[in-house]
Amino acid sequence: MQTSPLTNLSRCAIHTQTTKPWSLAQCIDGYSRAGVMGISVWRHAIEPVGARQAGKMLRDAGMRVPSLVRGGFFVAPDAPGRQAAIDANRACIDQATEIGAEMVVLVVGAAPPILLEDARKQVADGIGAVLDHAQAAGVRLAIEPLHPMYAADKSCINRMTDARRICEQLRHPLLGIAVDVYHVWWDPDLCQEIELAGRQRTLFGFHVCDWRIDTRHLLTDRGLMGEGCIPIHAIRAWVEQAGFDGFNEVEIFSEQYWAMDQQEYVQRICEAYLGNI
Amino acid sequence: MQTSPLTNLSRCAIHTQTTKPWSLAQCIDGYSRAGVMGISVWRHAIEPVGARQAGKMLRDAGMRVPSLVRGGFFVAPDAPGRQAAIDANRACIDQATEIGAEMVVLVVGAAPPILLEDARKQVADGIGAVLDHAQAAGVRLAIEPLHPMYAADKSCINRMTDARRICEQLRHPLLGIAVDVYHVWWDPDLCQEIELAGRQRTLFGFHVCDWRIDTRHLLTDRGLMGEGCIPIHAIRAWVEQAGFDGFNEVEIFSEQYWAMDQQEYVQRICEAYLGNI
Repeated sequence: MQTSPLTNLSRCAIHTQTTKPWSLAQCIDGYSRAGVMGISVWRHAIEPVGARQAGKMLRDAGMRVPSLVRGGFFVAPDAPGRQAAIDANRACIDQATEIGAEMVVLVVGAAPPILLEDARKQVADGIGAVLDHAQAAGVRLAIEPLHPMYAADKSCINRMTDARRICEQLRHPLLGIAVDVYHVWWDPDLCQEIELAGRQRTLFGFHVCDWRIDTRHLLTDRGLMGEGCIPIHAIRAWVEQAGFDGFNEVEIFSEQYWAMDQQEYVQRICEAYLGNI
Repeated sequence: MQTSPLTNLSRCAIHTQTTKPWSLAQCIDGYSRAGVMGISVWRHAIEPVGARQAGKMLRDAGMRVPSLVRGGFFVAPDAPGRQAAIDANRACIDQATEIGAEMVVLVVGAAPPILLEDARKQVADGIGAVLDHAQAAGVRLAIEPLHPMYAADKSCINRMTDARRICEQLRHPLLGIAVDVYHVWWDPDLCQEIELAGRQRTLFGFHVCDWRIDTRHLLTDRGLMGEGCIPIHAIRAWVEQAGFDGFNEVEIFSEQYWAMDQQEYVQRICEAYLGNI
């Protein structure tokens, strides 16, 4: 499947973690200098200034904020731990309101020796417990399936299929899925799950980067779009065909790129965005 | 689900790659000294002596050989490349006969920029082309689904579901699946796929190790059984419930363990085998 080439940066957003060495102020300045007016904000990036001040900075600069990253981590060995996670997610939703983020991305958690099957139930319960709060705030919640290599420590939801099951169980217009090509590109069911998510109106987010064939690290060796083997263009065509017209969020964790001049890196991101997705 | 504890090593086999610093002769000697009479042989371990001599060594020592590891790698950008892979797999089947291995484990391959969907077709075609040869030799072929983190370079078959589809397409009594807990433990469909494989008589192999929660390397940081978060006992119960009564093959790649005294390591493997699966 084909879709139109991207000819401008109007739907481009960058995750602050992509340029991890930068403060929030530097991200706002550096992205907008490159013509990127979308920014997905990681929570630790707003900690030094607080959510209120961060919101003012973002609004003053005219930035748009598709996502606050990240809520979730609902899995815990006991009830107080699970309640603490629910409280933390409500606070996260409040932060999203303060910075004007359209959605909170949920990395749902995993905590062995809790079995994945039980963990998945805890996740559904946890999300169910914060949906009212999200509704009052008008903030969307997007479950992000993470690659199965993170099933031991970060997420018991590893395919769109798993995320869909929770969405179908809870059925709420503010609950959906964030599709990150890095996590799901290998899945034979990806195309049909994207199509289904479009019909179910759960296609909330789309994240891009690339999978380096010679990946050197489980967490911090993502590639720039075009450097790896993910058929990003085809997947973008699928999500657009399914009705998605939100931001294409660039989310790259890379020791290699964090080590270079970050403004130059943002320039390379823009080139890869326009040329390779 | 529960199954009986393992009280002896009669169904234990070790992959030669688990004790990579050892030659084949050292593996035979070291395993049998520990009371392990099952050995799954990696092809490069027999190269120095040749398959015929390796077979004699294994028979003379009274070893049983569940698997020759590994055939496969059927994916290639052109027809001559694919034919070369088919020829190599026929040679691999001959080697299996020479060393008395019951089956060849297939790591099926992946070769970007070939799309995974096309790669999977090449794999089915490749396996289909060697089945007659396997039948003539009386050697089983076991497709091993590899963890999705290897989808870029080693295997386009990443779940039991994918392997099953190929088995269903080719339908041959000598074609089945090798279940390695490391690759598939995260899959919500695992239990039902194992049950189905039992009914379809495709449950050929069972490999054990563990997933270290703090995994440091994509390839060479597997844990000893009990060191990680895989519910190995539950999965063994599922495969036994599904009718599997073959070897429990210990397959661990670990820089950490390769660095220690290998005889002592084999002793630790035996303890972990008896205590933690």
